[in-house]
Amino acid sequence: MLEDKNQERTSLAELGEFGLINHLTEHFKLYNSSTAKGIGDDAAVISASEKERLITTDLLVEGVHFDLSYMPLKHLGYKAVMVNLSDVYAMNGVAEQITVSIAVSNRFPLEALEELYAGIQLACDTYKVDLIGGDTTSSTKGMLLSITAIGTAEKEEIVYRDGAKDTDLIVVSGDLGAAYLGLQVLEREKQVFQVNPQSQPDLDNYTYLIERQLKPEARKDVVELLKELEVKPTSMIDISDGLSSEIMHLCTQSKTGCKIYEDKLPLDPQVISTSEEFKMDSTMIALSGGEDYELLFTVPLADFDKIKSNPNLSIIGHVVAQSEGMNLVTRANQEIELKAQGWNTFKQGDQE
Amino acid sequence: MLEDKNQERTSLAELGEFGLINHLTEHFKLYNSSTAKGIGDDAAVISASEKERLITTDLLVEGVHFDLSYMPLKHLGYKAVMVNLSDVYAMNGVAEQITVSIAVSNRFPLEALEELYAGIQLACDTYKVDLIGGDTTSSTKGMLLSITAIGTAEKEEIVYRDGAKDTDLIVVSGDLGAAYLGLQVLEREKQVFQVNPQSQPDLDNYTYLIERQLKPEARKDVVELLKELEVKPTSMIDISDGLSSEIMHLCTQSKTGCKIYEDKLPLDPQVISTSEEFKMDSTMIALSGGEDYELLFTVPLADFDKIKSNPNLSIIGHVVAQSEGMNLVTRANQEIELKAQGWNTFKQGDQE
Repeated sequence: MLEDKNQERTSLAELGEFGLINHLTEHFKLYNSSTAKGIGDDAAVISASEKERLITTDLLVEGVHFDLSYMPLKHLGYKAVMVNLSDVYAMNGVAEQITVSIAVSNRFPLEALEELYAGIQLACDTYKVDLIGGDTTSSTKGMLLSITAIGTAEKEEIVYRDGAKDTDLIVVSGDLGAAYLGLQVLEREKQVFQVNPQSQPDLDNYTYLIERQLKPEARKDVVELLKELEVKPTSMIDISDGLSSEIMHLCTQSKTGCKIYEDKLPLDPQVISTSEEFKMDSTMIALSGGEDYELLFTVPLADFDKIKSNPNLSIIGHVVAQSEGMNLVTRANQEIELKAQGWNTFKQGDQE
Repeated sequence: MLEDKNQERTSLAELGEFGLINHLTEHFKLYNSSTAKGIGDDAAVISASEKERLITTDLLVEGVHFDLSYMPLKHLGYKAVMVNLSDVYAMNGVAEQITVSIAVSNRFPLEALEELYAGIQLACDTYKVDLIGGDTTSSTKGMLLSITAIGTAEKEEIVYRDGAKDTDLIVVSGDLGAAYLGLQVLEREKQVFQVNPQSQPDLDNYTYLIERQLKPEARKDVVELLKELEVKPTSMIDISDGLSSEIMHLCTQSKTGCKIYEDKLPLDPQVISTSEEFKMDSTMIALSGGEDYELLFTVPLADFDKIKSNPNLSIIGHVVAQSEGMNLVTRANQEIELKAQGWNTFKQGDQE
């Protein structure tokens, strides 16, 4: 999208750092009474509260975590916020503030950053989160986003990764694997475009997959749903690196094992049809795909009735003793040891 | 220092992201009872408190903010923490936690990151701050550090930028301009080294300057001193972009003017002698040098006796009505309008 030669281009140097921050953030609203002082001083100030504060941070690097040739900047801004809010929700908390730091090379005009901040603002407005600070600087190459999210939770409401107990049910929200397949579709279209820039992609069969890749939603609604259902998970994590990897985190930290049932994994019809088209195993994709930003949690067996018929939640297995290991039970009723094929950015080729 | 061919090199990919974070942070101690949960879950947890929370964040980019050819990684880690703590102290707060996110290209071996984290750990131990989270990822070029610092302050103790009043005294801690000159000395030595790698630099005359550039200290002690003196500043900011730029922030946000006296600017003898050597004006350097990380604040005239004879503090001027403007009174008793020559990273050449 940056290749559009007709768009206006205003150099970042014209504004300077302070002018730039003011320009990009002047239309942001504040939603939380806890935000005592936002942007404009040495530090932001958050009011005292009887609740605990949750702090989480993520770094997104162009060429490693995102590709601007198919990721519109507005979507990138939105997604970067989602990735962080998701971590607050995974603690069973309420996200209230974010800080956003960006490093960009001078090749980005002001209009590109306006797009990015439009996405950040949409995320803030939708999730009622306040932008309270950040830093804006130049980079020697590409774009980098560092976001910190701050949330609150009552002490007794916080859910850690280490509380799963033998016989607990393992539950996942939404469905799995679509974001990964969305990325595969976009990568394929990029290659087609590089060979033939005149080609018109027909993406009707992949709309859900692409939306899950480009505009994921953090599951604030699931945290609210669990409160309504009066269910407090015993352990919880969000799915950023793939289901296998995240289940293994819960089990390792809780000192348990697990059984996950292949036929219980929630898959969207587009995931099934597109897996076939790409000649990939949909179970593998659900287990290792990553970037779903769904919540994975365990609940006591006694909560079965509260969970079982909820369309937003799938019971995919249960916790077992650590000695039994972490296994997938296949449709053919075979047990296969789970392996984490999560994303290791350091194993990717260095593009320097 | 990365050119030392004899050092051990362990590839980051061998450890993976989780192993890497664990390896780098396993020896960090926790100092604050407010740190309920540090590294190891979706988010860190900070206990509820009757105090306000202060949040500040900074992004440091290789090739823009630091040059690894003369900045040892241990010093970089230390300085990156100082830059953030300084912002908490500039609110009159107590820094308690930090998160550290880094992006590094695969050319950095594990041993380089260990050096970086040794500096971060030294800063945490010295300032009694807890590392509670972060993110570690690969970059496509160079190194980037994003640090968020979290502090506390009683609501009535917080000092903002906008409280300066006509007749207030303008006070600065420590001395000015040394960090900037330290950078000039290091840049000169780098050029000498590039011409003649056998040359042995004699840096005895610049030790203070170089230390101020490579190992600045955040002025936690000044915040404590002010409490002892029972002085609460009416406005405060830390000096990262140069005295002029920071004074202008205070005056603009407080809707005041100021008079700064050239003969009151605190200069170390090495600043004076090295300015002469570089044929630079030491007043200019004190006003625009940057990276001093001293505290600049205003106090009511009634506090004059508490401040005047303290060796850590210099009264450099006073606040006047906004209509009188922001001026420097020279040794020749001329008034010159202050100009912000602060650092605008976007005006530097793009090195892409």
